[in-house]
Amino acid sequence: MVTNADIVGATGYTGQELIDILLNHPNVKITGLYSTTQEPKPISDILPGLKNRTSLICKKIDKKELVADKSHVVFLALPHTHAMDIAADLMRAGKYVIDLSADYRLKSTSVYEKFYNIKHKDKTNLSKAVYGLPEIYRQKIKGAKLIANPGCYPTAAILALAPLVATDSIELDSIIIDAKSGTTGAGKKTTQELQFSETDEDFKPYKVNIHQHMPEIEQELSKLSGKNLKLVFVPHLLPLKRGILETIYARTVAKSKPTSRGIISLYKKFYKGEPFVRIRKDADYPRLKDVVGTNYCDIAVGVFGKNIIIVSAIDNLLKGASGQAVQNMNIMLGYPEQTGLL
Amino acid sequence: MVTNADIVGATGYTGQELIDILLNHPNVKITGLYSTTQEPKPISDILPGLKNRTSLICKKIDKKELVADKSHVVFLALPHTHAMDIAADLMRAGKYVIDLSADYRLKSTSVYEKFYNIKHKDKTNLSKAVYGLPEIYRQKIKGAKLIANPGCYPTAAILALAPLVATDSIELDSIIIDAKSGTTGAGKKTTQELQFSETDEDFKPYKVNIHQHMPEIEQELSKLSGKNLKLVFVPHLLPLKRGILETIYARTVAKSKPTSRGIISLYKKFYKGEPFVRIRKDADYPRLKDVVGTNYCDIAVGVFGKNIIIVSAIDNLLKGASGQAVQNMNIMLGYPEQTGLL
Amino acid sequence: MVTNADIVGATGYTGQELIDILLNHPNVKITGLYSTTQEPKPISDILPGLKNRTSLICKKIDKKELVADKSHVVFLALPHTHAMDIAADLMRAGKYVIDLSADYRLKSTSVYEKFYNIKHKDKTNLSKAVYGLPEIYRQKIKGAKLIANPGCYPTAAILALAPLVATDSIELDSIIIDAKSGTTGAGKKTTQELQFSETDEDFKPYKVNIHQHMPEIEQELSKLSGKNLKLVFVPHLLPLKRGILETIYARTVAKSKPTSRGIISLYKKFYKGEPFVRIRKDADYPRLKDVVGTNYCDIAVGVFGKNIIIVSAIDNLLKGASGQAVQNMNIMLGYPEQTGLL
Amino acid sequence: MVTNADIVGATGYTGQELIDILLNHPNVKITGLYSTTQEPKPISDILPGLKNRTSLICKKIDKKELVADKSHVVFLALPHTHAMDIAADLMRAGKYVIDLSADYRLKSTSVYEKFYNIKHKDKTNLSKAVYGLPEIYRQKIKGAKLIANPGCYPTAAILALAPLVATDSIELDSIIIDAKSGTTGAGKKTTQELQFSETDEDFKPYKVNIHQHMPEIEQELSKLSGKNLKLVFVPHLLPLKRGILETIYARTVAKSKPTSRGIISLYKKFYKGEPFVRIRKDADYPRLKDVVGTNYCDIAVGVFGKNIIIVSAIDNLLKGASGQAVQNMNIMLGYPEQTGLL
Repeated sequence: MVTNADIVGATGYTGQELIDILLNHPNVKITGLYSTTQEPKPISDILPGLKNRTSLICKKIDKKELVADKSHVVFLALPHTHAMDIAADLMRAGKYVIDLSADYRLKSTSVYEKFYNIKHKDKTNLSKAVYGLPEIYRQKIKGAKLIANPGCYPTAAILALAPLVATDSIELDSIIIDAKSGTTGAGKKTTQELQFSETDEDFKPYKVNIHQHMPEIEQELSKLSGKNLKLVFVPHLLPLKRGILETIYARTVAKSKPTSRGIISLYKKFYKGEPFVRIRKDADYPRLKDVVGTNYCDIAVGVFGKNIIIVSAIDNLLKGASGQAVQNMNIMLGYPEQTGLL
Repeated sequence: MVTNADIVGATGYTGQELIDILLNHPNVKITGLYSTTQEPKPISDILPGLKNRTSLICKKIDKKELVADKSHVVFLALPHTHAMDIAADLMRAGKYVIDLSADYRLKSTSVYEKFYNIKHKDKTNLSKAVYGLPEIYRQKIKGAKLIANPGCYPTAAILALAPLVATDSIELDSIIIDAKSGTTGAGKKTTQELQFSETDEDFKPYKVNIHQHMPEIEQELSKLSGKNLKLVFVPHLLPLKRGILETIYARTVAKSKPTSRGIISLYKKFYKGEPFVRIRKDADYPRLKDVVGTNYCDIAVGVFGKNIIIVSAIDNLLKGASGQAVQNMNIMLGYPEQTGLL
Repeated sequence: MVTNADIVGATGYTGQELIDILLNHPNVKITGLYSTTQEPKPISDILPGLKNRTSLICKKIDKKELVADKSHVVFLALPHTHAMDIAADLMRAGKYVIDLSADYRLKSTSVYEKFYNIKHKDKTNLSKAVYGLPEIYRQKIKGAKLIANPGCYPTAAILALAPLVATDSIELDSIIIDAKSGTTGAGKKTTQELQFSETDEDFKPYKVNIHQHMPEIEQELSKLSGKNLKLVFVPHLLPLKRGILETIYARTVAKSKPTSRGIISLYKKFYKGEPFVRIRKDADYPRLKDVVGTNYCDIAVGVFGKNIIIVSAIDNLLKGASGQAVQNMNIMLGYPEQTGLL
Repeated sequence: MVTNADIVGATGYTGQELIDILLNHPNVKITGLYSTTQEPKPISDILPGLKNRTSLICKKIDKKELVADKSHVVFLALPHTHAMDIAADLMRAGKYVIDLSADYRLKSTSVYEKFYNIKHKDKTNLSKAVYGLPEIYRQKIKGAKLIANPGCYPTAAILALAPLVATDSIELDSIIIDAKSGTTGAGKKTTQELQFSETDEDFKPYKVNIHQHMPEIEQELSKLSGKNLKLVFVPHLLPLKRGILETIYARTVAKSKPTSRGIISLYKKFYKGEPFVRIRKDADYPRLKDVVGTNYCDIAVGVFGKNIIIVSAIDNLLKGASGQAVQNMNIMLGYPEQTGLL
């Protein structure tokens, strides 16, 4: 059986990764590529690396055409706030929709509106959307029609903290996430800030404790803990293209005296059988190059007195976006979860 | 005695370098900073690295104000085609003008118009402008009022080839310049091409044999040789911020049998006493980090049969722009040539 | 059918790429990994990125064990001069050998000894070895037992020049290769020269016209032209990890007046049906990111008067090493040539 | 008056910076350069960037010669544990000694021996050494003969935390330092870890909570607070050459309700008149390029509920090493503190 897939936003960084993965996916045929291009043209004219690999044409985004397309599943790899213009129509047409933007992630529209500065237009589907983090929501993903594919920072953060939060092992008000991301995390839009001459040999924090991924992490960790949780979140921009590494700090609950060994064993149990989460040995912290180019999330944990340090690393374009999107598609459509990934 | 200097285009990369050099120049006082900013504001609000170093205000470019200013010398660090709107008025006001753009470099307006796609508006001053390459035109610079500060690629290329061309040592139709530049060579304007995610870990040729610096090099080498000379010029973009390195190839004239030693000695003689040209030993080729952050041009020459290989390296923002501009100012105003430069 | 493959030198950069490719190759099972490690240990302890992907053990290189191994094909990904210690025994044991080093590339042992500073120890197999450039030697590779896998610079250079040299289209003494490579081209041995603090933000030529890949290119182009050919070759080190881009200059033969269109058409004909050579449109020059991560060689050609400029780009670890090695294996063993590549 | 200065360890990264600074220092003459070189040779043969700038000879380190030298002040820019072999003799000869290593920083020899794995050999001078952080110890530095120049991480951390710790504004057990450094922080010794191919496009934590700079920071903050303080310290390696940025987290003391404005004003008061500390405006966090190439430490503070976030940035080779060393020399010898810096 072959699944027909459309990619909307095909020329952005997550779109390119989707093309790359799906061209090698044995069960998928890409049936449509859409972007902001004015004239239809071969995708390999826009992305010369694809020459000889595909003769697919990239067309201008057109809602009617998208609905009429013979696709079974549509990946929306669009900037935030654009997905909710399209998703409802696609769903009405009976298609599976995997949205890589933030539009269906935050269950509270007031939080969404505060952090994305726009009214939410599709509350109906918002309530149906499943947050596509397979390690937490696999069962729900199986029956989902609309996936809110998690943000890159939240993927690394939630996977890093879930075992502790779900087991009440840490003080809920003690979480500090010091996150570092490569530049593709900002997408392909052109800005002065992200010119090579500005970013090369530089390093900086940005959106200190006000980043739009903060409420997404808080929402999911609050669900896991059953309590309303707030955290400290400081993202930084790394002078490299791909990868997120988060160094996370938390304090153990009052009387517990955990050991690194005990906490590592807790993580291994929590993620037992997970194909894409790798728990590291004691004192063996991950680095970006262990995960870049893969769909893995590598996690190390260390206990130092009452402090727990967790280091979590992913490729922001794969486990943090397009790889996870395909993982979700595999689950939704009943393919083995790792198909086409790696 | 103190010279008052204005910098127009103060927030671009060459403007920043000028501020940096002139703040430490013992004979200069910066009297005005101008840029495209709408509201006057402290330059250290725009460039935080300057905080505590200067309280200068950056103002919007205004020709009248510039003319009325108490400056003796004005540095025009503007995109090409903007300088010729201002220079004439400044000169009429009796100011020395050092233009870092291409507007006064090409003596042929038809060549200018072909490569810069705009009519030349100030032919009067074009004929008076002195090409500010001190190693070739020092005497003329001493009496000049308007300096056409050379382009970055041309500075490295002309200094590398002048000794050979001026002595008829090579076949004039054999010159090939394979040039590589860091990203600041493109200036500070924002483009998709120069986003970090596009440029990092990449390398490419661009404007192959059609770059606007090619006619500038040809003009100057033709003057030195006394014959109309054409060359091959391929620039490439390096994933680094600063520096130009050019690997240049030429064939020796028919019956000559030069040696590396002989040619090196020719270069040493040609550049005897030059403070900013360093001729390397045999087989000791320069690299960017030997010159970045300095006003030096390092040159190595090797002879391999009938082929001569010349490697020339400069900092594109210093010897290739702002450093050379200050060197020119020092010559024009009678200060020791190295003042303020390293 | 499954082919058993051993990789000797598994922890170097080309060894890592071989593991990566072969783990996904549908017809190959990796049966042995060998390196300089003292104790046998899981390869994923040495290369943590491989955790969960393979449980293979990496063992110390031992000739007896290698010969006794159940492998059908052995990849030698060793530093130069080490392969010829092992290859003969492996061949006697009836195994296919693909040597990624230079040991079997140069047909003249005196040239080998001059450029690699060591006596050649295996002249018997040297004469049997087939130079593994499929686009030129596909038929010979089909029957080969020992492949001399081409060097990275030579792969890009020979593919770029073969159409011109084979058709007598250029002056044979006019070829200039200005080559630029990322740092993995130097392998994994630790040197001061290649420390991050030395290489980052730097660019330099090295081994100017004396690099050991020069005679390899000359040997192959001489064969193609039928005449003894010498060229100029200047390699440079780029501050990036992967990729080779060569800008090549040559002069057309005396009376010919070729056009870009004509020469491009010559290239397209020469490489018709080749799965891994992509000829670019006029004025559409390749950049590293078009080919990095792939087994493609992208080539552009432009004619400027009597000068021809060719730009050729490959991933030095794939088409320049491990990708090409697997391409050769596919041909030798009768698998479709692209299997496992891309 | 001219001060004669020797630099021991002249070819390392901090040694190079010292040469660079002192060649432009109006009151200093470099009288000797020493390194591990076997034969005396011009320093510009080792560091070609210095050609034309100095004809100084670099000699092999020889204690007798160093003592006999006509130097007034000696900068020891040596790897840890080498300085204490030399310092005592130099001091006996009446010279001022500024040690850039860790040998005289830790007042407890048992802590030194634990973190540097070697017995301390010069307890006499250890007790006399003054910790060279001018913003805290300026008065003591004025009368010092031996300066223990602070580590790079400690400089950024102590300056960032001193105002809070000295005023009892934070819970002492709540300090978390998430530190990121460029590669020159590791010095010039050659390691596999720091090869370009390993470090480029990568990012990783290292020595998590066991780094040797941790006890140095704890010692100094404990002194400032009057209590024995322990902190969490996680250093990371950035893929860039120069700069340290630390993101620091702490909790305010129980009942206080500080505001960002209030804390910023506390910092401005604490560092009033300091030439090299710049307190940023609210929400205006520093980045590396604001400080790289300068002797500044830029600090921003933000209050978020009970959490305080401090971001501190320095150039690790200047304020974090050689720049601060010259600042200390200026204070010791009575020169204006900023002389030669900037």
